[in-house]
Amino acid sequence: MTTPSDTVTPGRLPRWEDAEVVDCDVRVTVSSVEVLTPFLEPRWQDYMAESGVRTIGSGRYPTLPGASTDLHLLRDRLLDPWQTSHAVLNCGSEISSIHNEDWALAMARAVNDWLATEWLAHDPRLRGSIVVPLQNPGSAAEEIERLAQHRGFVQVLLPVRAEAPLGKRRYWPIYEAAERHSLAVGIFAGGTSGNPSTPVGWPSYYLEDYVSYAQAFQAQVVSLVSEGVFTKYPNLRVVLTEAGFTWLPGLMWRFDKNWKGLRREVPWVDRPPSQIIRDHVRLTTQPLDEPDNSRHLVETIEQLGSDELLMFATNYPHWQFDSDEGVLPSGLRPEVERRILAGNAHDTYRL
Amino acid sequence: MTTPSDTVTPGRLPRWEDAEVVDCDVRVTVSSVEVLTPFLEPRWQDYMAESGVRTIGSGRYPTLPGASTDLHLLRDRLLDPWQTSHAVLNCGSEISSIHNEDWALAMARAVNDWLATEWLAHDPRLRGSIVVPLQNPGSAAEEIERLAQHRGFVQVLLPVRAEAPLGKRRYWPIYEAAERHSLAVGIFAGGTSGNPSTPVGWPSYYLEDYVSYAQAFQAQVVSLVSEGVFTKYPNLRVVLTEAGFTWLPGLMWRFDKNWKGLRREVPWVDRPPSQIIRDHVRLTTQPLDEPDNSRHLVETIEQLGSDELLMFATNYPHWQFDSDEGVLPSGLRPEVERRILAGNAHDTYRL
Repeated sequence: MTTPSDTVTPGRLPRWEDAEVVDCDVRVTVSSVEVLTPFLEPRWQDYMAESGVRTIGSGRYPTLPGASTDLHLLRDRLLDPWQTSHAVLNCGSEISSIHNEDWALAMARAVNDWLATEWLAHDPRLRGSIVVPLQNPGSAAEEIERLAQHRGFVQVLLPVRAEAPLGKRRYWPIYEAAERHSLAVGIFAGGTSGNPSTPVGWPSYYLEDYVSYAQAFQAQVVSLVSEGVFTKYPNLRVVLTEAGFTWLPGLMWRFDKNWKGLRREVPWVDRPPSQIIRDHVRLTTQPLDEPDNSRHLVETIEQLGSDELLMFATNYPHWQFDSDEGVLPSGLRPEVERRILAGNAHDTYRL
Repeated sequence: MTTPSDTVTPGRLPRWEDAEVVDCDVRVTVSSVEVLTPFLEPRWQDYMAESGVRTIGSGRYPTLPGASTDLHLLRDRLLDPWQTSHAVLNCGSEISSIHNEDWALAMARAVNDWLATEWLAHDPRLRGSIVVPLQNPGSAAEEIERLAQHRGFVQVLLPVRAEAPLGKRRYWPIYEAAERHSLAVGIFAGGTSGNPSTPVGWPSYYLEDYVSYAQAFQAQVVSLVSEGVFTKYPNLRVVLTEAGFTWLPGLMWRFDKNWKGLRREVPWVDRPPSQIIRDHVRLTTQPLDEPDNSRHLVETIEQLGSDELLMFATNYPHWQFDSDEGVLPSGLRPEVERRILAGNAHDTYRL
């Protein structure tokens, strides 16, 4: 929602001077497909050269030019001024929308190897998310297995606009592999589901499309809980990035109430959905759906019913802070701030 | 979400003894298509007899048997014990999903004439909503015109799961007719949009389907504002029934924030969306997405930023009050309670 000129990174607030900061959502971008060439088999290099493929990104977000493709800029603009202890790199891509499943797997492998080689190997503060071909959950699970011993990867990354609700059983091999290797599952604001971006059809404007991402996240949370993913995989943690969180209290109330009446339909959901959400779902803080009255935001954070749900993120370089104060609301208790800035990320990512 | 045995109507709370109560959402049902026969031309009587059509309802909700099809029961169980001054009757139907547009119009006319003749004519407390064939907005506008002089009708009723976002220009003849005759536009939790009930595809369970109605309402509010419906029809009021409302503060914050960045795309949205919503959108109170902590509900109502948004409704006979206290949260200021119980309905429906 910003133009490049708005994206000057604010520094830390003085009140956090001594606090550890973990940045749970830093976006990195493949600047051009050539950077992936060293990580692709010759077959796929030829395939892409012949078909003129130039990008794997959606190109739908404004970014700070060059910034998210350059490790030096990332250090200078983000990690050093913020004294970030750890930063989780997420490479949002449209790989899960590629029709050719073999190519999708090759691209996911290339992105992951590029991330490990060009980023994670060069700075001990960096952690990464594993990109997988969601079209084929079996291949996705194999890719997770391949990288599971790489200590730099802490998360598996899925698009919120998936082909189907992410709780569906077809996706369970991904959750099984993630849980086995103590990886979180991150869900990012992207993807192409094949369905309209709202449940009542295609909207006219990008404004509507962007606002409606929150609805896709709501649907995925409801699906993951209703299908019993967290009953089957009790140690799984899901992190929603770029999702906002102000919609969550109302969703938990609605979900709990209707679960009381319809629980016979989902007998594996053996306690109120809000409790399951609080145990398993985490949300990053940027971009913040910030009300004019900051007290309302503090109330909403308290309504979440747990200090363990929110995790600090800059969403760099999609920098959408309106001001220093927009980083986190004022009025939070200091121990809650510390949990948001680092503690919850340590627990979730086992840093 | 209730079984018939749960649906004993609680009486008024003592604290409302002297207050006027307007019930903004009472559901009436066509018990069988035979009751519509007197209101259908012979052609359509034959058409339905030959094709064996028996119902126009979705049959998806549990109801108190017989109650919503019987005026005497409605009086005995609801209007008299509650001393309701006015009750708005909504006949939820699947008429907007009928493929044959001519038949849809005939059915809408029959339902409206039945409502006027069998209900509105028999009790001065009753008001009605005009059912329209949404498939053909021109026909819908004509049906509104036909009934506009009938003083019993106060609203035009549309399903939230429409074929398309309701802000789309194709629907504007409906809003023009409604505004011209000072009718509100009600949107109810029903319909069959042709799209999956979530933006990420069909969920497995009715629990998910029901919870996700809130997402459809969110999408429709965003569409109505983004397309400029309220700029074009500045006196139009839209009433969301059976929608819940706890999702609205977060949506307004998100919508306002992203509008700031993307407003060039929708230049007719010339002030923050939350202001437009507060001026034009109303929401009925049942069913209530009630949190365990009633203070959270009071906070959420205050976060709406206006005392004029909520309107009392029982949603009879889909009675979902958990208890007397579930009717409205405790802790509201008395003047806010009075506005919710009757004042806002008077303003919205020009009673």
